Amino acid sequence: MNPTAQLLLPEVEDLIAHGRYAELREALHGVDPADVADTLAELSVKDVALAFRVLPRDDAAAAFAYLDPARQEKLLAALGDRQAADVLEAMSPDDRAHLLDELPEVVVRHVVSVLSPETRRVTQAILGYPAGTVGRLMTPGYVTVKPGWTVAEAMDHIRRHGKDAETINVVYVVDEEGKLVDDLRLRALLLADPVERIENLMNRSYVKLRATEDESEAVRLMTRYDRAVLPVVDSRGVLIGIVTSDDVADVAQRQATEEIHRLGGVEALDAPYMKTPLTSLVIKRGKWLAALFLGEMLTASAMTHYNSELEHAVVLGLFLPLIISSGGNSGGQATTLIIRALALQEVEIRDWTRVFWRELAGGLALGLFLALIGLVRILAWRWIGWGEAYGEHYVLVGLTVALALVGVVLWGSLMGSMLPFALRALKLDPAAISAPLVATLVDVTGLVIYFSVASIVLRGTLL
Amino acid sequence: MNPTAQLLLPEVEDLIAHGRYAELREALHGVDPADVADTLAELSVKDVALAFRVLPRDDAAAAFAYLDPARQEKLLAALGDRQAADVLEAMSPDDRAHLLDELPEVVVRHVVSVLSPETRRVTQAILGYPAGTVGRLMTPGYVTVKPGWTVAEAMDHIRRHGKDAETINVVYVVDEEGKLVDDLRLRALLLADPVERIENLMNRSYVKLRATEDESEAVRLMTRYDRAVLPVVDSRGVLIGIVTSDDVADVAQRQATEEIHRLGGVEALDAPYMKTPLTSLVIKRGKWLAALFLGEMLTASAMTHYNSELEHAVVLGLFLPLIISSGGNSGGQATTLIIRALALQEVEIRDWTRVFWRELAGGLALGLFLALIGLVRILAWRWIGWGEAYGEHYVLVGLTVALALVGVVLWGSLMGSMLPFALRALKLDPAAISAPLVATLVDVTGLVIYFSVASIVLRGTLL
Repeated sequence: MNPTAQLLLPEVEDLIAHGRYAELREALHGVDPADVADTLAELSVKDVALAFRVLPRDDAAAAFAYLDPARQEKLLAALGDRQAADVLEAMSPDDRAHLLDELPEVVVRHVVSVLSPETRRVTQAILGYPAGTVGRLMTPGYVTVKPGWTVAEAMDHIRRHGKDAETINVVYVVDEEGKLVDDLRLRALLLADPVERIENLMNRSYVKLRATEDESEAVRLMTRYDRAVLPVVDSRGVLIGIVTSDDVADVAQRQATEEIHRLGGVEALDAPYMKTPLTSLVIKRGKWLAALFLGEMLTASAMTHYNSELEHAVVLGLFLPLIISSGGNSGGQATTLIIRALALQEVEIRDWTRVFWRELAGGLALGLFLALIGLVRILAWRWIGWGEAYGEHYVLVGLTVALALVGVVLWGSLMGSMLPFALRALKLDPAAISAPLVATLVDVTGLVIYFSVASIVLRGTLL
Repeated sequence: MNPTAQLLLPEVEDLIAHGRYAELREALHGVDPADVADTLAELSVKDVALAFRVLPRDDAAAAFAYLDPARQEKLLAALGDRQAADVLEAMSPDDRAHLLDELPEVVVRHVVSVLSPETRRVTQAILGYPAGTVGRLMTPGYVTVKPGWTVAEAMDHIRRHGKDAETINVVYVVDEEGKLVDDLRLRALLLADPVERIENLMNRSYVKLRATEDESEAVRLMTRYDRAVLPVVDSRGVLIGIVTSDDVADVAQRQATEEIHRLGGVEALDAPYMKTPLTSLVIKRGKWLAALFLGEMLTASAMTHYNSELEHAVVLGLFLPLIISSGGNSGGQATTLIIRALALQEVEIRDWTRVFWRELAGGLALGLFLALIGLVRILAWRWIGWGEAYGEHYVLVGLTVALALVGVVLWGSLMGSMLPFALRALKLDPAAISAPLVATLVDVTGLVIYFSVASIVLRGTLL
């Protein structure tokens, strides 16, 4: 709970307990809806329903949009149809669509039925676009003007129709068929001569989104063009909504969270960690853990194959975790860097050869660096007397470890960087690769590299 | 390069080659500055400098802000003092401060000296705040009104002073001392009675940032309160700037990238992957790889300790990579989830006990799940004749592996989830923990768990 909500809570509890609703209304007036929601989140559903009945309709709707979906559902039931409809009608269309996305199907059908015909039409239009598209993010709260109007006519129109708009910082110029032809900043209108025609202010240069595009396109365009609002058109170019920066910021944050979860080897959680039920948390982690476990089982098979080497040279086992984890770590690094660069479009699929050469040079340098540390460690331990277990052929063992490290780190860097490109080339989502998956793949091949190097270097001595 | 830039490039190259500068100016007019910058990025510095001389000052400055810092520096040198000053003067103050952040100290001092006194004052004020603070993000382009004014007076003031503002969607009400007392949406003014006093439209409820706060606070407040612009005040409450959603979106994206890089076990890159010099890429990765390698060396020490167990029961070595990587994977999952939840403030430090119990239950369930898979695998392999290497005591070996898996996965989940809290409690940045670091720590302890379980279960048989 944030400080404002903490200050408000005792007062609000007291006013509800004593039925002093007029004062409650007064106490919550002018408080930011996010803070009102935070305060109400601490109360029982019954008390929140009481508070919602006394709040002005717009304040109630604004606070409602900030509550979490489970609470929204309970509250709708507690409010009853008429008051629930009031709150829903006053919500912005995108917030309402977002709420309906979260509710069970049967509740949605009921909720939509209590809306006014106009609100129902707008809500269903937005719900008609698949989840994850720009259509779901958009809101119809924009103002349009016509090219033939004067600035004074446009300003008069904005004054009359701007009340329900999410923004009037930008107004949109549409032709007779409703097709978008330009965007104009309100500032340009304010500063223009009132008798000037709109068409003389136009430069016909604008950035737009299509309703069927993926919501990540909204994030990309808004970041690229530094806009706070973007217009949305249908397939014919007709303006049907706008997308605002607050909704896009939420999408960007959610995408970063998904990317982080998947890179960490967890199926992305749909809700905050603490609100994800334990069973769903275990399932989302268990799937990946089991997949990685099955992959890692190949190491046991590979090890079985090298069983006789291991029996002859138990010393090789000592450095096994060290070597395979180094390959996994370098592979994880490369995957992390490339997947993030692909997500930010800093790297495109056609860059794969340049990445390959970079990782070849970089992986070689990193491998040589670790090999040097490993070699010095083995020789030093032996010389100060801690490395008896390394046996009489400790120099050859050190050489085996060093050469294997160069191979494993180089191989890890190449696998980790090339796998995301391979998935992208196969039209699959590169983010489906996680760092632990690369580590697992590199573990198996790392084993093979290690024992192959050993069988060459140690032939005639230990093996 | 994006499609617009691809279309423009041949035309622009042709016009520059033939010295047709008036047509060049025409061709680039009305094109979005981000696209102009993309097109110019393909040309030589000399040609870009030519193009900049013919572009209108504001267009040139807008495109300049989108170029990458290395190119900006070369271009400033190519343009010469007077034209460089023109471009810099026309940039928005936050973009200019951002540019000066990237330039070498000696260039900054020269650049600041060619600015006009007024621009120099604004630039140096912004540069006076440490990098990473709200002060560096803010721009002074806002409009203020006084409580005693009428709406008509305020609108007249906005018309006269709104030209240089970054936004006029929101205007700020300040008292005689310049202290912020409220924010008003322009829409409220447009729709109000022109003779109404500003103070009668005020609700004195607003969200503000302090210039000395960390820039992440701007991300947090803008996300929480769904704003596209936030006012910035100094320690006395005097309004000194605004922060807009485009700058905050850049900060949020940069922070997500840093978080992803660090979780992946790489020191965060300061530049896109392809633009990071190979040596700096190798150093940023090498540091972490070496640290993880040194930590992983403890596994070699631990293995030395269990050398006699390994000699007596080589079969234990077969499952070693499988067991320690499972611990590392579950630890990495827990760390990823908790670090992201801490970054989004979904989880606070005081939640650590609740997280502990969740991870205890979840880790136990996941461990049992993997143990079951592991046990079935060992028994099945033996029965179908592929598991001869497991020896006559294969049931006991299976039991050892299963029990070790429960212990290692549980331990990994607890370590992975509790370490970020421990760092936070020590006032250190929890994001300094990476998934591979947790995996390395769990590898060492996982070995100890595995061999301890083995020495109990296999006593009297293999050991």
